[in-house]
Amino acid sequence: MKIALAQINPTVGDFTGNLAKIVSASQRAAGSGARLTVFSELVLCGYPPADLLDKPSFIAQSVATLDKLRLATAGLPTAIVVGVALPAAPATGKRAVNAAILLDKGQVLLEQHKMLLPFYDVFDEQRYFAPATSQRVVEFEGERLAITICEDAWNDKNFWSQRLYPVDPIEDLMRQKPTLLLNISASPFWHGKRVIRQRMLATIAQQYKIPVFLSNQVGGNDSLVFDGSSFGLAADGTLLAQAASFSEDIVMADSSAATGVPAVEAKGLATDADTEAAYEALVLGTRDYVLKTGFQKVLLGLSGGIDSALVAAIAVDALGAENVTVVGMPSQYSSSGSVEDSRKLAANLGIRFEILPIEPLYREFMQTLGPLLAGTRPDLTEENLQSRIRGTLLMALSNKFSSLVLTTGNKSEMAVGYCTLYGDMVGALAVIGDLVKTRVYALSHWVNRNREVIPEAILTKAPSAELRPDQKDTDSLPPYEVLDPILEAYVERYETTAQIVAAYGFPPATVEQVVRLVERTEYKRQQAAPVLKLTPKSFGSGRRFPIAARVQV
Amino acid sequence: MKIALAQINPTVGDFTGNLAKIVSASQRAAGSGARLTVFSELVLCGYPPADLLDKPSFIAQSVATLDKLRLATAGLPTAIVVGVALPAAPATGKRAVNAAILLDKGQVLLEQHKMLLPFYDVFDEQRYFAPATSQRVVEFEGERLAITICEDAWNDKNFWSQRLYPVDPIEDLMRQKPTLLLNISASPFWHGKRVIRQRMLATIAQQYKIPVFLSNQVGGNDSLVFDGSSFGLAADGTLLAQAASFSEDIVMADSSAATGVPAVEAKGLATDADTEAAYEALVLGTRDYVLKTGFQKVLLGLSGGIDSALVAAIAVDALGAENVTVVGMPSQYSSSGSVEDSRKLAANLGIRFEILPIEPLYREFMQTLGPLLAGTRPDLTEENLQSRIRGTLLMALSNKFSSLVLTTGNKSEMAVGYCTLYGDMVGALAVIGDLVKTRVYALSHWVNRNREVIPEAILTKAPSAELRPDQKDTDSLPPYEVLDPILEAYVERYETTAQIVAAYGFPPATVEQVVRLVERTEYKRQQAAPVLKLTPKSFGSGRRFPIAARVQV
Repeated sequence: MKIALAQINPTVGDFTGNLAKIVSASQRAAGSGARLTVFSELVLCGYPPADLLDKPSFIAQSVATLDKLRLATAGLPTAIVVGVALPAAPATGKRAVNAAILLDKGQVLLEQHKMLLPFYDVFDEQRYFAPATSQRVVEFEGERLAITICEDAWNDKNFWSQRLYPVDPIEDLMRQKPTLLLNISASPFWHGKRVIRQRMLATIAQQYKIPVFLSNQVGGNDSLVFDGSSFGLAADGTLLAQAASFSEDIVMADSSAATGVPAVEAKGLATDADTEAAYEALVLGTRDYVLKTGFQKVLLGLSGGIDSALVAAIAVDALGAENVTVVGMPSQYSSSGSVEDSRKLAANLGIRFEILPIEPLYREFMQTLGPLLAGTRPDLTEENLQSRIRGTLLMALSNKFSSLVLTTGNKSEMAVGYCTLYGDMVGALAVIGDLVKTRVYALSHWVNRNREVIPEAILTKAPSAELRPDQKDTDSLPPYEVLDPILEAYVERYETTAQIVAAYGFPPATVEQVVRLVERTEYKRQQAAPVLKLTPKSFGSGRRFPIAARVQV
Repeated sequence: MKIALAQINPTVGDFTGNLAKIVSASQRAAGSGARLTVFSELVLCGYPPADLLDKPSFIAQSVATLDKLRLATAGLPTAIVVGVALPAAPATGKRAVNAAILLDKGQVLLEQHKMLLPFYDVFDEQRYFAPATSQRVVEFEGERLAITICEDAWNDKNFWSQRLYPVDPIEDLMRQKPTLLLNISASPFWHGKRVIRQRMLATIAQQYKIPVFLSNQVGGNDSLVFDGSSFGLAADGTLLAQAASFSEDIVMADSSAATGVPAVEAKGLATDADTEAAYEALVLGTRDYVLKTGFQKVLLGLSGGIDSALVAAIAVDALGAENVTVVGMPSQYSSSGSVEDSRKLAANLGIRFEILPIEPLYREFMQTLGPLLAGTRPDLTEENLQSRIRGTLLMALSNKFSSLVLTTGNKSEMAVGYCTLYGDMVGALAVIGDLVKTRVYALSHWVNRNREVIPEAILTKAPSAELRPDQKDTDSLPPYEVLDPILEAYVERYETTAQIVAAYGFPPATVEQVVRLVERTEYKRQQAAPVLKLTPKSFGSGRRFPIAARVQV
């Protein structure tokens, strides 16, 4: 059977727009000869709808839109599989089910609910959905078709050393002898996930000798970037079809083909852990956040450092040079190179560069505060003040010119609180908030792979906040080659101080200092802009820690 | 049997401090003749521990602390019941169970896990815990003791018209013929909950003819305020013991008493929906947030309006007048009364009052921005700028003097985005962010019940942001008598525009305007300070909505 994997970019809550995209893609797939067109999980409402699912009116819109889709595609020669939220049985105590619907010629041939509802990291599905109580294989075009939804395929005991659920829906389904397995997903990107996803389903294909077709959402929704990367596998686990990563795509394959090309490596997905995928994810995440919130333009402060340089490059690739404005806001502590390096970067990117010196404002603040600060000594107050003046200037331009401010802080800074709330943390989106500093360098070098976009001086200068004379990041923090591994171990893998010391051989006092900084600065992160997710554990809704706590480290 | 309900205020993660409180309270209860002392849910680690539960080291600390508690209380004549997180069986795929432990003379007599794990609003328990697979009644001192944990008692079909779970653990337990039912809770406050909690358990007591004793956590933890209000009920549903609301307490009663005093109304809990309870909740929530984050002092901006006046009064009751500083930051648009009203309020409260005029700073910002703003017309930019200057001044004082800034915005403003991100939204805690404006008035009048604390002029002036000449809130928004019911219907009860129009008779255009404002300003709320929760649906972690969405209203 000719199957189309229709990988579209829905907007959460936009039933009208999403319906139009689904109908259009179905028509195109039909025109190319597809007998079955497979869309992604919850494609009608977009993923993740979050607490919109708690609104009865939202579920009602979802039901009504499914019916419109049924009528709009009734005349097409392709059947379609779509993900949709439908009402749950009242006895379950839940509002909704997360369903896959097989529609053909205006008829619903199958309604299969999701069985495994993820509830970890960014996922809250048990908050909303009642799980499937059974699974059913449906006869379609001579095939025995099994349809699963995302997590349902993520509990194979032959793939995972530790499982999150006591049941395996795939194993259960196989007792019904399906001949073709579909999985509709809304599986967000993190480093290496494309490879894991494809290898995991190849394991299932080979194990049960069954072709497997997966259709994944693409696009950015707040913090999450869905990479698409939909694929079809033959029963031997080889690749029959591979959709693009990070853009909409429709790919087709005949599910009866006995074998395809070698999977994963052949398509370059093994570079997943590398910088290119991360960069593309950030470009897509930035573009979609800006466009889906109804904006076109962005602005950001350029400090002359590497973080803002990288964000500027990402913004240009996301929105075009004409939609990006950068602002240098030098103070008395800015190095002479900072403005010139920024100017050169802006010229390289072809973007508008403005300069707003902050010294007069800083003096005026110190004048206003003078009577209250009399007799005190300079400390973080004066440093934060400079940062907040800059944030206020950016927000004024944002308000006046309807441009979103992009925040430029990296994950290392956010982790230890080396950033100013309402200062450099202002902004609508924290573009590189899930990149530790050493990875910021890696991506920046990648930006320069063909030509010098980010000036060499920015890549080589010692990191500095430039908030007091001759300041360096290493005055306050361990070098990033030490800090970043500690942060990855503590923040992303929940290792203890003792485990980190044992694994890396860093001085215990250094590790303890870092851990204390992380614990003390949770309040800043809870007021941060949404962070584009690149790792299995990023700051934001997937990491929920108390503020008023006394954690014993 | 003489039972003590030990209602203590734990700090999340502070195993050492919480253990010391539990041992001390056990000793006091034993000294008063208790044979059984009952603490609250997860009292060893404090509630809610959130993602700390994902750390193996945290669960290990929990296990070790339970053993210390066992040894420390082995010699006491009272047995104790405590809530504790313990490791889950690996096959469950979960890290932990939420357990109640009955300890007597150094022995564990019962380990009962929680069966119903709430996963709605602020609760994420299915994220962390494996549910109980069975329940067991234990013989103790001639009683057949049944121990349940919080939500386990919240699914009685005779009390609720709609249930969230298909099973009722209480109904199941009753088949084992217990003679005494305990419930250990971490049940946060919202309007009216004290009455519901007590009536619900009185229904259970009467239905099964069994005494019921409930021990609830007290204290503030980030957004949540636990009211305590622990109680013991005789088998006829009457009250044998009632602990204080909003403070630590130990109360005792003999569970064999056949009858007590009439419940609920006799203790004044029926005033729950009223202002006093809300005010006390805000005082406790503010005090605990400040103290548990290691601070003593707060400061806030006084605008001359009612919101900041109420927050100042709460701060004084929470922390003492000596720990509260207020700052007036008048501009050219401030009414002449604003500063004088603020000065009078500060004098009434006995707190330090400082004035920092913002006109020079505003002029300097317009000067700096001048070249970029040339040819533009005044709009929200200039209004937000004033607000951000004030926020920056407050944060400078916060940094210099180690005082937390309290945010003074109300729920009506936060709902429609009538507030400035990085401006009046700066601060560590949004004290009245769950009070709509009309309830701000109610609480302010209550503050003045005995004497004029908040000057009459503040109570009677028309609400204004004072960010442009002669501005009134009603220039931009419907009057609060119209706005607040719309917001309560839309934000708290998820009613639709059509339902609200039908219920209240407001013009559809007004309702639609409000709904659109709510939907467009989600991005502001996600960067807001934690909001003290007073209603079943407050802004913050219990209300999870996407930003980059297109909601069809």
